[in-house]
Amino acid sequence: MANALKPRDAVVRMAAYHPPTGGREGKTRLDFNENTVGCSPKVIARLREKLAEETLTVYPEYEAAGAAAARFLGVGDDQFLLTNGTDEAIQVLINTFVDDHDEVIVLTPSYAMYKFYAEVAGANVVSIPYRGESLAFPLEELLAAITPRTRAILVSNPNNPTGSWIEIDAIRRIIEAAPHAAILVDEAYYEFYGITALGLIAEYPNLFVSRTFSKAFGMAALRLGVLVSQAASAAFCRKAQSPYSVNLLAAIALPAAVADTEYVRDYTAAALASRRLLEKGLHERGIRYWPSKANFILFDAGSKAVPLRDALRARGILVRDRSYELPGAVRVTCGTPPQTQAFFTAFDEVWPTL
Amino acid sequence: MANALKPRDAVVRMAAYHPPTGGREGKTRLDFNENTVGCSPKVIARLREKLAEETLTVYPEYEAAGAAAARFLGVGDDQFLLTNGTDEAIQVLINTFVDDHDEVIVLTPSYAMYKFYAEVAGANVVSIPYRGESLAFPLEELLAAITPRTRAILVSNPNNPTGSWIEIDAIRRIIEAAPHAAILVDEAYYEFYGITALGLIAEYPNLFVSRTFSKAFGMAALRLGVLVSQAASAAFCRKAQSPYSVNLLAAIALPAAVADTEYVRDYTAAALASRRLLEKGLHERGIRYWPSKANFILFDAGSKAVPLRDALRARGILVRDRSYELPGAVRVTCGTPPQTQAFFTAFDEVWPTL
Repeated sequence: MANALKPRDAVVRMAAYHPPTGGREGKTRLDFNENTVGCSPKVIARLREKLAEETLTVYPEYEAAGAAAARFLGVGDDQFLLTNGTDEAIQVLINTFVDDHDEVIVLTPSYAMYKFYAEVAGANVVSIPYRGESLAFPLEELLAAITPRTRAILVSNPNNPTGSWIEIDAIRRIIEAAPHAAILVDEAYYEFYGITALGLIAEYPNLFVSRTFSKAFGMAALRLGVLVSQAASAAFCRKAQSPYSVNLLAAIALPAAVADTEYVRDYTAAALASRRLLEKGLHERGIRYWPSKANFILFDAGSKAVPLRDALRARGILVRDRSYELPGAVRVTCGTPPQTQAFFTAFDEVWPTL
Repeated sequence: MANALKPRDAVVRMAAYHPPTGGREGKTRLDFNENTVGCSPKVIARLREKLAEETLTVYPEYEAAGAAAARFLGVGDDQFLLTNGTDEAIQVLINTFVDDHDEVIVLTPSYAMYKFYAEVAGANVVSIPYRGESLAFPLEELLAAITPRTRAILVSNPNNPTGSWIEIDAIRRIIEAAPHAAILVDEAYYEFYGITALGLIAEYPNLFVSRTFSKAFGMAALRLGVLVSQAASAAFCRKAQSPYSVNLLAAIALPAAVADTEYVRDYTAAALASRRLLEKGLHERGIRYWPSKANFILFDAGSKAVPLRDALRARGILVRDRSYELPGAVRVTCGTPPQTQAFFTAFDEVWPTL
């Protein structure tokens, strides 16, 4: 039969997105900003306790996970959605508020899935570049780009991959400049920054804050996030969310994860110590980097970006080349100090040879 | 701040969908067509073996799961997507092919998520009712409803909640009548039926077949499905799918699940024995039911539908009231023969009192 099947124009236009997550086992993974050690042993203990034939056979129930998340975030039971990673939070937000040909404002470079889901939704994506060499947050440019057709503005704070951040007052200006748009503040790296927009939610019905268990909590494999807002705004989003998108093992893990605050605090402290080591080490080597509030540092490897990534990989150290969006840029995750030391040892071996 | 935030009209129009999955623990769960016993012990063994802090900390990789799924389905590596349950298969299919105001044809009553995702996408949903009291498949009506604006036709075979089925020749007629539309044949209950449309895929680029691990395989908690098609059609869909929607534990479980064919065969045989017991028992009690090719039977409880459900629940047996879409209809899952016997024991106690 002749092929008369055509995808939507919006899909035809999209670039395929396949992040390079293959063959990572056994390597020092400084490429995806995960927790480089592992999740809390208490999460594993809880999952082992519950893992049984009968557990897996039922559709997920979320009551206990929801109650634990509400207590942890200090918000009401009706003020958030559990999501299949931050990715589903972004998708649900867009599906709730953005119609075909509506405008969605994103920054560039930033997390790829903002643009991805906006494009899937058929939105007109308006990309505002971070400023010049400094990659400063383009607040005035963003405010100037807001129109009556703007239906969502998606901001990562701190931002991936730049590591840059915006102040709460700047977030407030964005929210107030676009009361008709849903503002997402994606706080995937909150634990490494310590400043949150959650406190603004009571004031602004158009503010949404997302968090993830994929980074500091070390549970990327389980796919778990939350999307927080005022109750009425969360109710809108819930209408566009499918009822079983979060798997039950993620829901079982959540209460154990948020109970072990000491684990996350200790890991975060190690990552922050590594951030200082990376800043110091790059500076000493005369390599330009961008200041970061997250668990990674973006640095300028110039024309050596791709060869550096490959040479480090050959020595068992994974970093992420970002030169496709920012010439010369390489991103390295802040793991533990010994992992950071291993990074520099390998770096010093290969850098002069490239 | 005054609330200027408005959801999309498509979302405003949608009814909230909250299936009643609370408080099911410890009960005989004949309400969601799950495997009523549990998944294969080999799945649990595999997960226990892999469950460790370091496993959960990384983003999922799907290579081994994809290879096992391809072998199991007898299709090429590039002919399918792993999905976050069948729900994501439906969503990705619609997001790939259906634009705002395009037509999507669904049957009614059928699985609620077809209409749900079509509505989220802003589609014009055309609902074709199953025929009269017999609930026969309305093939001619469906064919007559196809227009040049039809972009997807979503069929469950066997259908939930009716249990009814369509022949391969009827599927072929639908596919050929709408070469410009994506045709989904959702085979969630395939293992209880034994007839598949997979054999047609080589012929038709517009055919998509979904399977799930939530029913016979007993893994509903993990959220795992597949969406199969020709490679070029799968490539379109992959563009609209986010890269990490399936959690890693589901991906780890998949090879163990498909390796234990004996387990699924034995469970399926028990469910089919229960289906015969249910047909016989309902017939003996003078209760009308609809013939089923799936692991459930829909029967007519008349005005007693809701009280029956509640009275059975009080005795620890869960069934699903469907009278909101089909007056008097109650759906009972075919579990094991002892579970079916327990159903009838409770039924006989409560039925005369209602």
